[in-house]
Amino acid sequence: MSSSNVMVHMHQRALHLLEEDANKIELLIEVQMENLATRKCPLYEEVLDTQMYGFSREVDFAVRAGLIEEFAGKQILSRLERNLAHLYEALDLKEKE
Amino acid sequence: MSSSNVMVHMHQRALHLLEEDANKIELLIEVQMENLATRKCPLYEEVLDTQMYGFSREVDFAVRAGLIEEFAGKQILSRLERNLAHLYEALDLKEKE
Repeated sequence: MSSSNVMVHMHQRALHLLEEDANKIELLIEVQMENLATRKCPLYEEVLDTQMYGFSREVDFAVRAGLIEEFAGKQILSRLERNLAHLYEALDLKEKE
Repeated sequence: MSSSNVMVHMHQRALHLLEEDANKIELLIEVQMENLATRKCPLYEEVLDTQMYGFSREVDFAVRAGLIEEFAGKQILSRLERNLAHLYEALDLKEKE
């Protein structure tokens, strides 16, 4: 492989790994959204915050290591943050019912 | 640069970044060790645990992305864990005084 092929391969692998990890958090958010009406797990907020923190450290490292562009990293994180914000809004509404 | 040069460069960069982050945690541990006799910050344990968790996620990602060998990652983490264990031992002894 040429050096640029190696870089492309490394970039793609890194992005793929980050997407996978982001999807795991998305799934946690979805599960919590679905359970909104039935039960509220008191630890979900802490678990999600911890997962988000760990994930943001991964993304930050990938950017610093030159594996992904800063913009790509921000995009993945923003998407998760938006979904998380929706969950918290829904939980707030639920509490006010 | 040849493809193997690119890889060596990426590996070195990743290791250097991880060493830097590990050093920051080492510093936190040292500061706490030095302050053992004078004062105990109630949040140090939580801060250190959070930092360790974030760092372990970085290391894990670096291994999965093919940037460092699993063994190298484990070595860096073990070193930190040993230092952390020393701190907690010292704190335990201090409490028993």
